Amino acid sequence: MADIENRLYAMRHSAAHVLATAVKHLHPEVKLGVGPVVENGFYYDFDLGDVVLSEDDLPKIEAEMAKIISANQQFVKDIVSLDEAVKWAHENNQPYKLELLNDLKRSGTTDVKDIDSDVLGTENGGSSAVDTVSFYTNGDFKDLCRGPHVESTGEVGPFKLMRVSGAYWRGNEKNKQLQRVYGLAYETKDELDNYLKAAEQAKMYDHRKLGQELDLFVISPLVGSGLPLFTPRGTVLRQELSRFSEEMRARVGCEFVWTPHIAKQELYETSGHWAKFGDEWLTVTSKETKDRLVMKPMSCPHHQQIYGSRKRSYRDLPIKYMETATVYRDEKAGELLGLSRVRSITQDDTHIFCTPDQINEVIGSLVDITKEFYSLLGLEVRARLSLRDNNGAYLGDKDLWDKAQTILKSIADEKQLNYFVAEGEAAFYGPKIDFMATDALGRELQLATPQLDFVQPERFGLSYTDQDGSEKTPVMVHFAMLGSIERFLSAYIEHVMGKFPVWLAPEQIRIVTLNQTEAIKQYASEVLKKAKEKGLRAIVDNDNESVGKKVRQAEVMKVPYCIVIGPKEVETTKVAPRVRQDLTDKKDIIAIDIDRFLDLVQKEYTNRAVKSSL
Amino acid sequence: MADIENRLYAMRHSAAHVLATAVKHLHPEVKLGVGPVVENGFYYDFDLGDVVLSEDDLPKIEAEMAKIISANQQFVKDIVSLDEAVKWAHENNQPYKLELLNDLKRSGTTDVKDIDSDVLGTENGGSSAVDTVSFYTNGDFKDLCRGPHVESTGEVGPFKLMRVSGAYWRGNEKNKQLQRVYGLAYETKDELDNYLKAAEQAKMYDHRKLGQELDLFVISPLVGSGLPLFTPRGTVLRQELSRFSEEMRARVGCEFVWTPHIAKQELYETSGHWAKFGDEWLTVTSKETKDRLVMKPMSCPHHQQIYGSRKRSYRDLPIKYMETATVYRDEKAGELLGLSRVRSITQDDTHIFCTPDQINEVIGSLVDITKEFYSLLGLEVRARLSLRDNNGAYLGDKDLWDKAQTILKSIADEKQLNYFVAEGEAAFYGPKIDFMATDALGRELQLATPQLDFVQPERFGLSYTDQDGSEKTPVMVHFAMLGSIERFLSAYIEHVMGKFPVWLAPEQIRIVTLNQTEAIKQYASEVLKKAKEKGLRAIVDNDNESVGKKVRQAEVMKVPYCIVIGPKEVETTKVAPRVRQDLTDKKDIIAIDIDRFLDLVQKEYTNRAVKSSL
Repeated sequence: MADIENRLYAMRHSAAHVLATAVKHLHPEVKLGVGPVVENGFYYDFDLGDVVLSEDDLPKIEAEMAKIISANQQFVKDIVSLDEAVKWAHENNQPYKLELLNDLKRSGTTDVKDIDSDVLGTENGGSSAVDTVSFYTNGDFKDLCRGPHVESTGEVGPFKLMRVSGAYWRGNEKNKQLQRVYGLAYETKDELDNYLKAAEQAKMYDHRKLGQELDLFVISPLVGSGLPLFTPRGTVLRQELSRFSEEMRARVGCEFVWTPHIAKQELYETSGHWAKFGDEWLTVTSKETKDRLVMKPMSCPHHQQIYGSRKRSYRDLPIKYMETATVYRDEKAGELLGLSRVRSITQDDTHIFCTPDQINEVIGSLVDITKEFYSLLGLEVRARLSLRDNNGAYLGDKDLWDKAQTILKSIADEKQLNYFVAEGEAAFYGPKIDFMATDALGRELQLATPQLDFVQPERFGLSYTDQDGSEKTPVMVHFAMLGSIERFLSAYIEHVMGKFPVWLAPEQIRIVTLNQTEAIKQYASEVLKKAKEKGLRAIVDNDNESVGKKVRQAEVMKVPYCIVIGPKEVETTKVAPRVRQDLTDKKDIIAIDIDRFLDLVQKEYTNRAVKSSL
Repeated sequence: MADIENRLYAMRHSAAHVLATAVKHLHPEVKLGVGPVVENGFYYDFDLGDVVLSEDDLPKIEAEMAKIISANQQFVKDIVSLDEAVKWAHENNQPYKLELLNDLKRSGTTDVKDIDSDVLGTENGGSSAVDTVSFYTNGDFKDLCRGPHVESTGEVGPFKLMRVSGAYWRGNEKNKQLQRVYGLAYETKDELDNYLKAAEQAKMYDHRKLGQELDLFVISPLVGSGLPLFTPRGTVLRQELSRFSEEMRARVGCEFVWTPHIAKQELYETSGHWAKFGDEWLTVTSKETKDRLVMKPMSCPHHQQIYGSRKRSYRDLPIKYMETATVYRDEKAGELLGLSRVRSITQDDTHIFCTPDQINEVIGSLVDITKEFYSLLGLEVRARLSLRDNNGAYLGDKDLWDKAQTILKSIADEKQLNYFVAEGEAAFYGPKIDFMATDALGRELQLATPQLDFVQPERFGLSYTDQDGSEKTPVMVHFAMLGSIERFLSAYIEHVMGKFPVWLAPEQIRIVTLNQTEAIKQYASEVLKKAKEKGLRAIVDNDNESVGKKVRQAEVMKVPYCIVIGPKEVETTKVAPRVRQDLTDKKDIIAIDIDRFLDLVQKEYTNRAVKSSL
């Protein structure tokens, strides 16, 4: 808990005590669990016997908390011996605190399994011998607690209780289920309101909700959880995004390769991944061969096999492979969620083999395309240079490390990245640049990572013949622009709230007919044909419904352009497109010729324009 | 053995006896196994004790066979009782024949496990009671045999012994290993010579050999057999072929979907595939969930889950999904071969859901694109209409079957297909059209198959709301143009002998520099840049080698165009391209402006031209 010293932490911790105080006022028989600080707020676990709390009870508890806060009770700290504390727990009929204290006594250190030390009354963080504990008292409420707290309850900031849920004591399902009351707490009202607004929005624009409404993907119980199926509309998103990433990488010289989705375990034993991560992978059983197979969790060793299949010369380098490949991980069923946590992960994977002298050019070009790629997606990237420190066990030649780290820094400066240096964050096999961005909902997204690798090429015995005729080991660069397409989409759908730019939109133009006369239907299908010939994604809505209803339907599907075809449009060959609000600042779009309209949209598509040109 | 009545069959069967006669002359102690007719010839299995035959012994055996043939010995048939035959085998020390006869006696029918009835002496084909067997005698050689044979050894046509190999008695590795001598036999010398030539060529243009020489794919022992990795050049072939197939299918309204490579076994239990084929699949084990998972062996049930994820109306149909998807099969290790038999199979899979009234339009459009697709690939398609007969157990509505079969026939007539009707060849769930072609090596290739399916949509409870408001079950059409991209490539690489048309060629233009001066290198890289801007695949060969050697290297790699850049080319901006021989009838190509050259090649690429336009 790095933040334990800061004021917000103390406010949230104090809010948890105020919550417990309020619950004890309302239910004097309550047995207390623990009440730690969590992201955005705090919670406290209670055993209330037969009393079952619901969200309807929260306003009453909040009112009681407000009273305690306005009473401005001092938080007073006492340090007592462990035995005294045990006595207190007995006398006050607090079996959960008693259990924690007895555990503390038994272990003789502050390391009590399953419980953060800050909700124990032990003075020291870390693992050390203990014989005293501390209590904090406010008004008539006393709790075993390490602190810190604010001076008095009046200093607890704006808060809001959010929900009640069941929680097993110490997270163990064999234990009794307690009732967890969870609340938000911030230093200022504005911060609390902003968070509430963002959370409300996140709920409304949850990608799972939008995925269903916009017909993007399907989770089928027969196929399995964490294995989304992409509909035609969702597949457009996948393909447009990966095509964009592919185009950018082709521009810097990457060539496609293709590798299968399974491999012998031996491949990953050689790469060293099996020993570290094998537990997290899906294994494959063949009845016909004795091969021990795994579903590939990454494509690097496959690509190394391609590199290693021929003799390579310094003149061939850099060799740049790319593959939009689906890899598989054995995620816990309970953690699978929409597209953000899946078992089938599609990566826009890239592996570059180069000489040490080429690191600058290789990484520099990856930084360039990453900046351009994300700026077009409306995300401003920051970067972290993850370098080695003096403690870690790093593999590979120290001089090469130093040289590479110097190059990374000079690239970051030269390319004017918004970056910071994080020593000790390098992987054991090489330094890297981590790109990240903040989305419209204020969440931090992990984006592209060019990662140097001084170890794997040697493990696979890869080499190239240098100018002097000697055999050398190439440096490897791992890179993915989108990372996981599924995870990126889960964030991006929410970031744009389902309103995709024209180039990404699964449906770019909705052609709505005013009525069902032959002339109008015929003209609408002509327009559709023209649009398709220009490579545009368009649909005709010929349904026997009112124009108003059909236009609204296009709005619901967040289609960028909607045109209505009536007798006037047939006669003049002009249309007055309705443009999705976020794409334009204009109030009215004047009628333009249909061919001109289609040309303009085609140009927006090709240029991946962010705004409408109408 | 449908061919048992024809003359070639009798000639080959007689050649097997002549072979055995010759071996018995040379090795009187030989114990005879069996000697059946096989594709292109015959073999005979011998137990020669300690004598080991090699290919060096074949000329001697052939010479002895020639003597027997020129002696023109009559083939004389005797019918004897089973007991007499057993006695013969005992007296002549033929333990393998004895074993077969005892098996015959025990089973009392002609069904003897593992042995084709035509090498037994039983008179009737099929399974029936037996108490006599037949022998054939030529000269001093007598063999248990059903026949038929030609009249005399003089009627055995041209033959050639090809190889000796080990073969377990009755194909069971627990039995003794016999020595199998394999020979070709044809009616005419021309046919034999043609076959030998084609076989020679097939060896020279074996796709595994070309795959290595042209750097197309790699089999890595660490990844596993039957799991080819595609290099950048090979991936171009995969991508161009699947893009072509995708474009054609998009033209008839197919939309992309995407589905993961694994699914719960339950999905295939519901579809009915698991019970039939489950044994041939790879299974997947998760430690985190209890899901029983399989690697998907086909995408149909996945696509049905997408169809079934929303309510569908008759106005939405036909719904056409396509996916270029890799599926996995648990092939026997011993049968895996290059790209022709693999465990990772990429299909250009298509599933169409339609009303019975739409079958005509749907199948008609698939036939159109199939004809166009293969004619451009230089393969002339024939078709087999695989319909039901009156015996099989077919599922689905009989009226729908009749209607669909009538439609298939009328499409075949209307589209002027070169076709024949095969009653009884339909799948139990629907009739189909099988497209096939003969390749340059005379081999029959199985190509596209539009297959109707009246069963699966019901199994998954799929429906659409018809015009009258009632819920109906859609008809499903399974279709793949290429089928397995790997298998198609294995045949196509050999068909074109590695000389791919411009649009498919991994490298379209090789730019060779005359020498290493800055001006020439600079101009070559300008040309390269121009070519790439036009989307062409080009490479500069700047190596410090002679022009002759560099041009030959381009020829070895079967690059369609090679241009040499020297001082004259730099000065005039004109080049004299060398065109790969099969692409043009011209002897000399006159020099043309470089931009014009690149424009022409670009046009050939876009139009998928078969011949050079230079």
